[in-house]
Amino acid sequence: MVIGLDRASATPLYIQIANQLREQIRNGELVTGAQLPPERRLAAMLGVNRTTIVNAYRELAAEGLISGHVGRGTAVAGVSSADGPYEGTRTEMPWEQLFTSTTDVMNTTLLRDTRIVSARSDVISFATGIPTPELYPIETIRDLLDGALHEAGQSLLQYCPTEGYPPLRSALAARMGGERRSVDPNDVLVVAGSQQGLYLLARTMIEPGDLVAIESPTYLGALQVFRAAGARLLPIPVDADGMRVGLLEDLIGRRRPKLIYTLPTFQNPTGSSMSYDRRQRLLALSQRYQVPIIEDDPYGALRYEGQPLPSLSALDRHGSVIYLSTVSKMLFPGFRIGWIAAPRPVIERLTQMKQIVDLDTNPLAQWAVWAFLERGLIGPHLERLRRIYPARRDRMIAALEANVGDAMSWSRPAGGFYLWCRLRDGLRSRDLLAEAAREGVAIAPGETFYPDGEGESTLRLNFTLPGEDEIDEGVVRLARALDSLRASRTGVTIRNEAPVTPIV
Amino acid sequence: MVIGLDRASATPLYIQIANQLREQIRNGELVTGAQLPPERRLAAMLGVNRTTIVNAYRELAAEGLISGHVGRGTAVAGVSSADGPYEGTRTEMPWEQLFTSTTDVMNTTLLRDTRIVSARSDVISFATGIPTPELYPIETIRDLLDGALHEAGQSLLQYCPTEGYPPLRSALAARMGGERRSVDPNDVLVVAGSQQGLYLLARTMIEPGDLVAIESPTYLGALQVFRAAGARLLPIPVDADGMRVGLLEDLIGRRRPKLIYTLPTFQNPTGSSMSYDRRQRLLALSQRYQVPIIEDDPYGALRYEGQPLPSLSALDRHGSVIYLSTVSKMLFPGFRIGWIAAPRPVIERLTQMKQIVDLDTNPLAQWAVWAFLERGLIGPHLERLRRIYPARRDRMIAALEANVGDAMSWSRPAGGFYLWCRLRDGLRSRDLLAEAAREGVAIAPGETFYPDGEGESTLRLNFTLPGEDEIDEGVVRLARALDSLRASRTGVTIRNEAPVTPIV
Repeated sequence: MVIGLDRASATPLYIQIANQLREQIRNGELVTGAQLPPERRLAAMLGVNRTTIVNAYRELAAEGLISGHVGRGTAVAGVSSADGPYEGTRTEMPWEQLFTSTTDVMNTTLLRDTRIVSARSDVISFATGIPTPELYPIETIRDLLDGALHEAGQSLLQYCPTEGYPPLRSALAARMGGERRSVDPNDVLVVAGSQQGLYLLARTMIEPGDLVAIESPTYLGALQVFRAAGARLLPIPVDADGMRVGLLEDLIGRRRPKLIYTLPTFQNPTGSSMSYDRRQRLLALSQRYQVPIIEDDPYGALRYEGQPLPSLSALDRHGSVIYLSTVSKMLFPGFRIGWIAAPRPVIERLTQMKQIVDLDTNPLAQWAVWAFLERGLIGPHLERLRRIYPARRDRMIAALEANVGDAMSWSRPAGGFYLWCRLRDGLRSRDLLAEAAREGVAIAPGETFYPDGEGESTLRLNFTLPGEDEIDEGVVRLARALDSLRASRTGVTIRNEAPVTPIV
Repeated sequence: MVIGLDRASATPLYIQIANQLREQIRNGELVTGAQLPPERRLAAMLGVNRTTIVNAYRELAAEGLISGHVGRGTAVAGVSSADGPYEGTRTEMPWEQLFTSTTDVMNTTLLRDTRIVSARSDVISFATGIPTPELYPIETIRDLLDGALHEAGQSLLQYCPTEGYPPLRSALAARMGGERRSVDPNDVLVVAGSQQGLYLLARTMIEPGDLVAIESPTYLGALQVFRAAGARLLPIPVDADGMRVGLLEDLIGRRRPKLIYTLPTFQNPTGSSMSYDRRQRLLALSQRYQVPIIEDDPYGALRYEGQPLPSLSALDRHGSVIYLSTVSKMLFPGFRIGWIAAPRPVIERLTQMKQIVDLDTNPLAQWAVWAFLERGLIGPHLERLRRIYPARRDRMIAALEANVGDAMSWSRPAGGFYLWCRLRDGLRSRDLLAEAAREGVAIAPGETFYPDGEGESTLRLNFTLPGEDEIDEGVVRLARALDSLRASRTGVTIRNEAPVTPIV
């Protein structure tokens, strides 16, 4: 259930809410018997007064569309068949019966609620994975794009080889290459963000029922991609040294996963990094059991302290690692540029699939990323991030210590974008999400990152999108939400389907 | 088999060719017993002297990798196991056994050969679907992007709602809306080019084994998408009035396709448009049998003469049409911006799938397309194309009449990008491709557009990419190729796998 409010509109908010709920009931998104959220909870989610919700519900009750009973809450009463279908003839085509089944598994209520709260303009969001917008090198990009269009506009606005703009493939290969190995540009595929890379890998390697070993918790987008491909998931817990490879070692012979998916460096969401020893053991397992590793590395360049660890790809001596990264976290997400480096047969298969999926990746954006690398601009930019981001991390930790140290604990990651936190006293982060929404701050409940519904007490806090003052204010709001939560201990779930905006 | 030559390199061409063939034999792309192309044919494909190929083959024969016999041609002799695997450890992971099966059906030899020839710098290509680069509004786009980054860089370089940039959705809805209906912006999904739109539709609606009614011939990318989704295809022939709906009428009750896919206006590749009467009959069939129509309309805005026909979507009274279009043909392809307009349940399902596939579409490119529409620039731009393109079409027809009227016939389309041609005297366009490559001109063999291997005598000629002088010169080269073809009547097939560059 997503409700969008236009506060500038002449239509009263309660009418806007009633109209949207009515539409959702009419078109079947809200089915007969579906529970609506309690008034107070929905008011908090939408950032409106409770009275507004009360009035909206009264409108719908007067039309017979919903009914409320003390102790049972408010529920959809259903549409009598006399009302006819939504928008006249629109429902005559039996769409739901025409859809494939693989798309049914992709969104949870909790995730949708997180997105609704995070998108509110009056909310300070700790829920995203967005790099600091004030640090985007916009003037440089302006100059680069302007020069590129002037000099080579005709070729940069055309189709491009599916594999990617050749100079960018070379530049990415050179960037990855180091003392330990060299990467052939032909082993690099440019993709429309690393999400597309993951999707192509899943489509190319996963048949329904295949087993994928995956960290628990892990990147949400990976859970969605593997589930949509019909994979079964084999969760391997993560601790302060990354994936617990010893547990995988116990299981791999018996369970025989098809793939191992890992974020070994500044893992999303936990921020932990896999130790050197575990990296070597994981590679040995992969080789011994002939199970490829997908190494997802969006944050590897963002180390704030300690010695760098080689990537699995750099340590790989047997061609069993498929490396995946993106410029979204080190530069900005809007260009949608990521890349895969992998053995040639994998790149060729992925290229065939990408040709089907979207032909090629925006050549102008590829050119701009190439030019940014080629002109040596990425080094100074990353140095700047590596100065500013740890200060924000420490600012958030100081604010947490001052305000919520009694209610939760947190990690202090050596890199990346996130603090990983745990609520004390059996508090649940899904309940905190609702209380925090009321106070005007968004968190990412940890449950959404677990393949199996664990992690009820965990949450992820991002310190790169909010400014330093917003970090302070957001933590104060979080403290108030925790106080309310401990006072009330309520827990309510909001149900039903709705369109989505990505949070990564 | 793809061979890339670096003419600026110090390495002789015959060594370059031998090296690449050796690699392809070693890594298994060229299997033992595979036929290599005759020397003369490969020389024509690559634009080199026959001696170069002879020398390359001699190198490989000396190494025992290939062997030639009079009357049987040259074939791969195989790699003894003592040679060991390619690049040492690279083949240890059994990649081929790890891939899913759905990707096996996606490229034909003929298509790859067409791409190889079309990409040669010394070739005039009539094989593509690229709008005239000299007409791209580059200065306008420069100004728009520069202003956008200056004013809203932070938000345009971030993530964006999966459904698309809201003002662009509104502008596209407004553009589609007319007297006949209004389109709700919420019924519009922005996609990364119409290829992605087709892919998302196939993934959302096609289970392996489902039957799709499809025009014969039709858009190549659609054949690939539907085949990759595991669909069976029900070909419906196209004539001068578009899809022969009467034939579909005979079949639909018995065969019960899941979907109907059509390009009703300036169809690719034939250039024909579905008559008004057939449009109405098709909609009635769709409604009666509850089979949705995918209307693919990249060329509808490019009518050069005659009265416009309403789109199927505009005629639809029952919400059974899924409309798909792109800015790639009316503006340029590089921004990768297309859109789908469809009933809400379809848009919601596609959005969920797009979130998995690539999260969102490049917001800066979306903004630029929006601004181009919003500022009223698309109208004058299309008017310009509608003046220039028919002149090119007529120039090509005049050149064909003057040079090859005895060897082939052609259509005169009222819009779009292509002439659809038929060779006389049983000549095959796959043979013409090779002869034309030798003369320095590329054509698109019609066979690749047929779902069932028909159309051996047909070919598609594009008149938008080549300039007017190139059109003249290209047709002269084509005439020479036709002369050679009629003189020799040889036919040789080039086999084997290789990476690909899209031709649309």
